[in-house]
Amino acid sequence: MVTLKQLAKELNVSISTVSKALNNSEEIGEETVRRVKELANLYNYRPNKVALSLKNNKTKTIGVIIPNILNRFLAKVLFGIEREASKHGYNIITCISNESLAKEKESLQFLANGSVDGFILSVSQESQMNNEVEHFKNTIKQGLPIVMFDRVAHDVMCDKVIVDDFDATYNATKSLIAEGRNKIVFISNINDISVGKLRERGYNKAILETGVLEPLVLKIKKKDETAKKIKSFYKKNKNIEGVIAAESSSGIIALNTAVNLGLKVPKDISVIAFASKSDSNHTIPRLTTIRQHAKVIGAQAAELLINRMQNKGLEVDVKTKIIKTSLIKNSSTL
Amino acid sequence: MVTLKQLAKELNVSISTVSKALNNSEEIGEETVRRVKELANLYNYRPNKVALSLKNNKTKTIGVIIPNILNRFLAKVLFGIEREASKHGYNIITCISNESLAKEKESLQFLANGSVDGFILSVSQESQMNNEVEHFKNTIKQGLPIVMFDRVAHDVMCDKVIVDDFDATYNATKSLIAEGRNKIVFISNINDISVGKLRERGYNKAILETGVLEPLVLKIKKKDETAKKIKSFYKKNKNIEGVIAAESSSGIIALNTAVNLGLKVPKDISVIAFASKSDSNHTIPRLTTIRQHAKVIGAQAAELLINRMQNKGLEVDVKTKIIKTSLIKNSSTL
Repeated sequence: MVTLKQLAKELNVSISTVSKALNNSEEIGEETVRRVKELANLYNYRPNKVALSLKNNKTKTIGVIIPNILNRFLAKVLFGIEREASKHGYNIITCISNESLAKEKESLQFLANGSVDGFILSVSQESQMNNEVEHFKNTIKQGLPIVMFDRVAHDVMCDKVIVDDFDATYNATKSLIAEGRNKIVFISNINDISVGKLRERGYNKAILETGVLEPLVLKIKKKDETAKKIKSFYKKNKNIEGVIAAESSSGIIALNTAVNLGLKVPKDISVIAFASKSDSNHTIPRLTTIRQHAKVIGAQAAELLINRMQNKGLEVDVKTKIIKTSLIKNSSTL
Repeated sequence: MVTLKQLAKELNVSISTVSKALNNSEEIGEETVRRVKELANLYNYRPNKVALSLKNNKTKTIGVIIPNILNRFLAKVLFGIEREASKHGYNIITCISNESLAKEKESLQFLANGSVDGFILSVSQESQMNNEVEHFKNTIKQGLPIVMFDRVAHDVMCDKVIVDDFDATYNATKSLIAEGRNKIVFISNINDISVGKLRERGYNKAILETGVLEPLVLKIKKKDETAKKIKSFYKKNKNIEGVIAAESSSGIIALNTAVNLGLKVPKDISVIAFASKSDSNHTIPRLTTIRQHAKVIGAQAAELLINRMQNKGLEVDVKTKIIKTSLIKNSSTL
């Protein structure tokens, strides 16, 4: 890569002349500007932005750390962040923690060293299980603001964007109870993470409020084969009339497995899941879904971070935005 | 953020002593090392890796540019890249081009300035449509190797990992012909990009080889509603007996729409799509899929890049690895 110095030498002018010419300074004559630009072009010269950012202390870049790129919800949030950041002239660079605390720490440190002006992140499973937050606090202490979304660490004082997980399952369960369903199961493969726990609690509350129904929870572990597990659950627990699934894949499989066992959906059994519009398009009957508005979450997180970066130091209080879910009724419920 | 200089001042030692102490140099006494480390810890000192990378000219980081994070295949490739890079001690940072040439250029420039040692990327739709490759060539000229995967620019001399798209649809179509299917449609919403064209050609070849069948192609545009479009196609073209879908969503919808219209799958109509295992788990009957082994593609791309970065300059030839697809027969075909 050619440097300013090399260009200056070859053109027999000073480094500052080259720099000014490239920045169209009026101090430099037209002919010189032309010569400098021609040579810079020929050699593919590019200003070293990293060096510039060390000088300016501004990168106009947001670091995003997400736990799992195969999670469709997280991918959509990322999409929302990117679109909003782009509108404000910010780039994003993304690291994947793979649900690992060590990777999360590493990514924070790596990007905190001059690559980004702030972070948007969702906390990894391992950090949540170990309740580790020091690395977040240290980053903020360094002067780099963080906005957390979805899986947040409540002990860290920073802006957050969350979903009303508790209310979402509470309301969904109530809607199945209103359908006259008595035996309603909550199926979850995310009971290790904060949002999974909140979703279970919302379900529990709605069930217990009836005074007659009892909670029935099927927890699916990573190593389990979801379809098998649900099938044997249906066989052991006869007459299940309703399913609330904590995430899309188990919801889709709960629906398909019911159909496969000869149950009529929604006549015999209703199914509701946290899922997206395209998930509904991919099932017969179309799945009733709790929609989280992932792209909105991403956009709001980006907005919060950009505001904080632009009002550096002025804003002391932290905000928590709650994005309300919507229950979209399709044909898998009455 | 505290600097070496500030630490040195506070401890009343030289900057070089602080630096050596932090690097456990034997030149520095144990007591000094302890004092330096304590203070560095207290102030949360971290070596500025960006500055280090400018000096060393090595970041141990791979830049990944992907066109669309909502594309599940691309997300899985990213997962594969991350896992393989991690094994070799490399970090990855990811930028999303959003299918835009300008964003792709910007991401390349942004990361090329000292943040990464090389790139893995899949070409954006806009670059492919405009046949723009100069930005890739310039990056390679700067000394940063590129590995392209899936959507590649054949005019750029670099390592590539591709799928046997042509053979995949050729073989899938042949398998439907062998089932005795006569009216086979190719459904595609990716006819703008190179892999989409290859897939169509593979289908065409198999159809034309029969000497009696005729190609029948349904192209779906971005603005179209896939389900509506396929439904009206089925109604207009009676007795469709086979579907080859160029990507998963249109494949799943083609299957579901057939079932909805009262057709028996696979008795009346067979459906094959480029799709994943989890897509098969989400349809009834389970979808027969052309599997691309996305994670393998990612791993191979990472391996190629790391090899090239480590043998810098020694390797002149470029390699193209072809990852063979597998036709996984499930219950949506005979």
